[in-house]
Amino acid sequence: MIRMEYVLHPRSEIDKRTLALQSRMGETDGALLFNSVDMCYFSGTAQDGLVYIPKEGGATVMIKRSLERAQQESPLEVRPLRSLKNLKSDLDIADGARIGLEWDVLPMGIYERVSRSLAEAAFFDISEEIRQVRSVKSDFEIGLIREAARILDCGISAVPEYLKEGMTEVDLACRLESVMRSMGHQGSLRFRRFNSIVPLGHIMSGPDAAAPSFLASPTGGRGTSLLFPQGAGYGKIRRNEPVFVDMAGIYNGYIADSTRIFCMGNLPRVLEDAYSTTLDILDEVAACLKPGANGMDLYRRSEEEGALRGYKDHLGGTPGNKCGFVGHGVGLELDEYPVLGPLDHIIKEGMTIAVEPKMIYPHLGVVGVEDTFLTTGSGPERLTRLPREIWRL
Amino acid sequence: MIRMEYVLHPRSEIDKRTLALQSRMGETDGALLFNSVDMCYFSGTAQDGLVYIPKEGGATVMIKRSLERAQQESPLEVRPLRSLKNLKSDLDIADGARIGLEWDVLPMGIYERVSRSLAEAAFFDISEEIRQVRSVKSDFEIGLIREAARILDCGISAVPEYLKEGMTEVDLACRLESVMRSMGHQGSLRFRRFNSIVPLGHIMSGPDAAAPSFLASPTGGRGTSLLFPQGAGYGKIRRNEPVFVDMAGIYNGYIADSTRIFCMGNLPRVLEDAYSTTLDILDEVAACLKPGANGMDLYRRSEEEGALRGYKDHLGGTPGNKCGFVGHGVGLELDEYPVLGPLDHIIKEGMTIAVEPKMIYPHLGVVGVEDTFLTTGSGPERLTRLPREIWRL
Repeated sequence: MIRMEYVLHPRSEIDKRTLALQSRMGETDGALLFNSVDMCYFSGTAQDGLVYIPKEGGATVMIKRSLERAQQESPLEVRPLRSLKNLKSDLDIADGARIGLEWDVLPMGIYERVSRSLAEAAFFDISEEIRQVRSVKSDFEIGLIREAARILDCGISAVPEYLKEGMTEVDLACRLESVMRSMGHQGSLRFRRFNSIVPLGHIMSGPDAAAPSFLASPTGGRGTSLLFPQGAGYGKIRRNEPVFVDMAGIYNGYIADSTRIFCMGNLPRVLEDAYSTTLDILDEVAACLKPGANGMDLYRRSEEEGALRGYKDHLGGTPGNKCGFVGHGVGLELDEYPVLGPLDHIIKEGMTIAVEPKMIYPHLGVVGVEDTFLTTGSGPERLTRLPREIWRL
Repeated sequence: MIRMEYVLHPRSEIDKRTLALQSRMGETDGALLFNSVDMCYFSGTAQDGLVYIPKEGGATVMIKRSLERAQQESPLEVRPLRSLKNLKSDLDIADGARIGLEWDVLPMGIYERVSRSLAEAAFFDISEEIRQVRSVKSDFEIGLIREAARILDCGISAVPEYLKEGMTEVDLACRLESVMRSMGHQGSLRFRRFNSIVPLGHIMSGPDAAAPSFLASPTGGRGTSLLFPQGAGYGKIRRNEPVFVDMAGIYNGYIADSTRIFCMGNLPRVLEDAYSTTLDILDEVAACLKPGANGMDLYRRSEEEGALRGYKDHLGGTPGNKCGFVGHGVGLELDEYPVLGPLDHIIKEGMTIAVEPKMIYPHLGVVGVEDTFLTTGSGPERLTRLPREIWRL
C-alpha cells in the first residue's frame, strides 16, 4: 500500500546535496538558485524565493511567499525575502564575487534585477553542475522513485479495465491519470526545457500516434489544440491498431517512466516485428547500463543495431524527426541527466534511467517499450516491472 | 454541443494581431519572440522555433521542430530554423537594430545565443506591449472563451453527481477534470509567471483550503507534494465544511475561470455571511467593468467595501498572505492583463476578466465566488453563468 503522504526532505539529504554541488563549484564563489525544482532539491521547499549556496558553509533560504509554509517544509533556517534589492547584504556577497545562476531556465527579468543588486559580481552558468549533481540519486530519492514506479505499474495495468473500442485517447488518458492520482501521483510533470509543457504521458493510438511534435521525445501525438499539440487527442481508439501507453508515474515529485503497447485484436505483422526489435534493443542497452559506460556509446549502439535490422527510418522517429536519444535520466524532472544520446555522459552508480526504443510508422502508429532502471555496482535493476509482451485484449 | 476540434487561427487574426503590436513598437525595430504562447498568438503555431515581427511588414516564422506540423498550422509562410547563429541574415536585421524580447520569460541561455548572433543589436523588453495587445480579445478569441465557459459550467455543475462524504479533494478534482476534458478541455493550464506551474483548478475543502501558497492567487491549498504545494490534496471532504471549487475551463488554449461553493449539510454562520459579502463585492466590481475604468480603482473599491463590512483580514487572504488583486484577465494564460490590482490598467472593450472576491478563514476554510466577464460598450456580459448561491447537497 502506497501512503498518500506529503514527504519532507531530511536535513541530512539537503546537506549531502549541498556538499555535492560545492565540490563542483571550482572558481565559483556561490550559486544563486531561483528555479523551484532546484530550490526544493537544495532547501526542501519549493515556495517562491531563492536559495544561495556559498562555496563553503551552509545554504541561505529566503522566501517571499509563503514564508510560513517554507518554514514548515525546509529543514534549514528560512528567512523572509522582501526584495531582490538587498541581495548583496542579505547574502553577504563580496565585491567581485563569481556567482553561478541557472542560465538554462532563469528569465532575463530576474537576471536583470539580480545583476543590478550585485553590480560588482560576475555571473556564470551553473546549470550543468546542478544537473550533474541531481543525476545521481540518494537512497531517499530512490525510495520515492520506487514508489513512483509502483504507481505507474498500477496505472498501466488498469488499461484493460478501461480500454473500449471507440473511446477517445483523451478519455483513456483521464482514466489512467485518475487511477494514479488516487494513489499519490501529483498530477503534474516537470520538464526542464523552455516551453516544454507536457501531459502526464503520451497515450495515443493508430496513425495519430505518429504525428510529430516539438517535444524532446521519440513520439509526439496529435494533442488537443495548437497550444497543446502533443499527446492524447480526440481520435477514437480502434481495433487492430497499436494503443501506445507511455506514462510517467510520480510520487512526491519523483518520476518513473514506462511504456507498454496494447491492442484490441491483432497488429499488422510489420508492427509486431518492429516491437520485438525494440525489446531486443532495450535488453541490449540495459545490459550495458554499468558504471563507467558512456551514454553516447549506448545510443550509437542502439542506432547501429536498429540500422542493421532495417529500422533506421523508424527507430526514434522518421527521417527529419528523429529524437536523437534512446534514454534519459528521471528524477524531479523528466529530462534529467544522463542522456543516452548526443552528450558525453558517464553512467554512475545510483542513476535512474528510462530506456525507450520506439518505432514510428507514419500511417500505422507507434510501437515500443520503455522501462526505468536503477544503476548499481552489480548491474541495472528494473524498477518498472510489468510484463513486456504486447497486451492483447 | 461543443465540437472537439483542433481550431486553427485564420490569417486575418494573425494580421490584426501583428498590426496591433507594430503600432506599439515605438523606437523598437522588431520583436523576436520565443515563448510558445506568444508564438502561437502571432503566428498560429506553437511548435518549437521563433517569430520575428519587424516594425513594418509581415512576420517571419522559423521552426526547428516540427516544421511539417507548423506548416500545416500557421497561415503564414514557415521556414526551417537550423541554428540561431544565422539570425542576422535569416531575419535581415540591420546593425544597430533595436530588438524587443520577452524579458519576463526568456531564459538567459537563449538570450545569450541571440545576443551573440545579433552582436550589433540592442535589446529591450517588449513583454509589456505583448501583454497589452493580448489583453483585448477579437471576436474569434471571444468565441473560444465562450466555449471554455460552457465547458467550465458543465464541469462545475457535475460536482453534485460526484461529491461524496469522505472522498479526497484529489478524487473530486480528477472527476471534474475528466468531465471537462471529455468535452474538449485540453488538460493543461498556462501561467506566465516563472515557476508557476498550476493545477487545472483549486478544489479544496475545509481548513486545508486555507493553506497559503506562493501562487498569485487568493487561495493556495495543501497540494500533493513539496513540488506541487497547492490545490487539491489528500484531505477527505467532510460534511458541514465548504467545498471550494475554483476551476479553469479551456477550449483550444483559451481560458474561462469560475468558482462556486458546495456543501454537504450546513456551513457555519460566519462563512455564510462572508460568502454573501463576496457576492455583493462581485456585483459591485462587475458593475464598474466599463471601458475607461481603472483596474487599480476597482481593486481599491473592493478592499474598502470589504474593510467597511469587517472582512479586512479575510478578503483576498489573511494578513501577510493577501494576494493583492480582486480580478485578472484571462485568455491564453490565466494571469493576463488587465489586473484589477496594483497596476494602472485601463479597462477597454473586448477584455475578458475574471473577478474573484474570496474570503480565507484559517481554521474553517475558504468561501467566495468568481465569474468571467466580457467587457462591452454597454456594460459587462457574464460568460460563466451558473447559479451563484451555495450549492447545498
